[in-house]
Amino acid sequence: MQLSVPVRHIKVDFMTENAKPIQVTGIAGLPLIQEGDDIARLICDRIEILDDDILVIATTIIGKAKGYTKRLDQVQPSVQAIRIAEKTGENPCFIQVVLDNSVDLLLTYPFILSEISCGHIGVRAGIDASNIEEGKVILLPKDPMREAAEIRDAIHTCCGSCCSVIITDTCGRAFRRGQTGNAIGWSGIVAIRDFRGDTDLFGKRLEITEEAVVDEIAGFANFVMGESHAGIPAVIFRNCPKWQGHDNLYFNKEEDLIRNALGKKEN
Amino acid sequence: MQLSVPVRHIKVDFMTENAKPIQVTGIAGLPLIQEGDDIARLICDRIEILDDDILVIATTIIGKAKGYTKRLDQVQPSVQAIRIAEKTGENPCFIQVVLDNSVDLLLTYPFILSEISCGHIGVRAGIDASNIEEGKVILLPKDPMREAAEIRDAIHTCCGSCCSVIITDTCGRAFRRGQTGNAIGWSGIVAIRDFRGDTDLFGKRLEITEEAVVDEIAGFANFVMGESHAGIPAVIFRNCPKWQGHDNLYFNKEEDLIRNALGKKEN
Repeated sequence: MQLSVPVRHIKVDFMTENAKPIQVTGIAGLPLIQEGDDIARLICDRIEILDDDILVIATTIIGKAKGYTKRLDQVQPSVQAIRIAEKTGENPCFIQVVLDNSVDLLLTYPFILSEISCGHIGVRAGIDASNIEEGKVILLPKDPMREAAEIRDAIHTCCGSCCSVIITDTCGRAFRRGQTGNAIGWSGIVAIRDFRGDTDLFGKRLEITEEAVVDEIAGFANFVMGESHAGIPAVIFRNCPKWQGHDNLYFNKEEDLIRNALGKKEN
Repeated sequence: MQLSVPVRHIKVDFMTENAKPIQVTGIAGLPLIQEGDDIARLICDRIEILDDDILVIATTIIGKAKGYTKRLDQVQPSVQAIRIAEKTGENPCFIQVVLDNSVDLLLTYPFILSEISCGHIGVRAGIDASNIEEGKVILLPKDPMREAAEIRDAIHTCCGSCCSVIITDTCGRAFRRGQTGNAIGWSGIVAIRDFRGDTDLFGKRLEITEEAVVDEIAGFANFVMGESHAGIPAVIFRNCPKWQGHDNLYFNKEEDLIRNALGKKEN
């Protein structure tokens, strides 16, 4: 698998008075994705993708196409999984799959909140029993950055266009009710727009200096998808302003105040 | 001030294959907002607003137009403010303004994290020293729902269109670096898309049932604005799918696991 489409040189280009409106289009009409399906090909068959478009894809269809699924009746729950499941009221086999896909547990009750190997922290390790046959679950990809790069390469191969890709998952958050879409993998763009050194309208240094642009785009894509995914597992963004920054989207353990507070609660 | 534009009956209308692309347009070219300015009139003079558009406005310009600002040299810091400022290294007068605008403190170090009267939880009570003259700060509105309703009414008066309005602020979050735009007030739409009772593509009940749509829209608007606000303090969304749900965006204290964990950390 080549991962060769270069990241283009990014010129900062905020919207000006003459900028075209951004266009956001949900890609409807894709078939129910099966293991082995070529998602890039299916998307390119349904919609034109241009250079500089941002293609946002729900992690669900990546998991199904790549076979990142698990049958719960093939899982043997551990003592730990049985103990957690007794408290949460969930299927111990499901809990075992969550544990198997977690690298660090932040909470085990009233639900498992854990870090997965790519650094993302999510409820039940992002494992999804929706939109798949009864008795099976869909796992998050182990390396969502690589999945995004692969899709980006495959789109380039299919149609010659050099787009960016974001893979999204739906997550809860602190203080506010309701889930929102977050980015778990991306390619062709950087996660964080970095304003350090920029000034405000009055020439003062900005206080807020890092904006999680991939999450802002992922959230709006999730809105367009609809949470039942209503047959819209992918969304195209066109004419977005460009940005510069970095990919350091996850806090280090030491700097993450809320993670540290949860750790103290558990002990 | 009339608050009379009715919320339209909302028909659930997810994007179909024939749906028009969503158009998102940053409103550039507004003057630097001064106290007393009529934001709705300034916006209507620059851009056409249609029925069912969603107009997203940065809280900064609401604060400036309404005079929700404070001169720090007119503030007398309390003993508590001085004590906190010694630890955080901030101006005690600034800390006093943060305390005056907080109804509950979740953290005081390394920064104040607090609840403000509308229920929003934010760093430094959302008080902003950027994009205003040196020595002054911009406060969040005390009643951002009312501000959103007033703007919505004023747009209707100016141009006859019945749009929805979201007022945004930029906030940090747990586990992930970088700020994103959040909704702090809205009118004409509900905050949360409620899927309870809906089924997935396989007819199973959905696990995830509440989506914080106003935050997903606010986040993408924040991306279009650019954090220095680059002269784009407002964004229009056109052709969005509609949704049904409720306005219960903030957790109750009891159900907020992370707030409770922070409380235990403090004690």
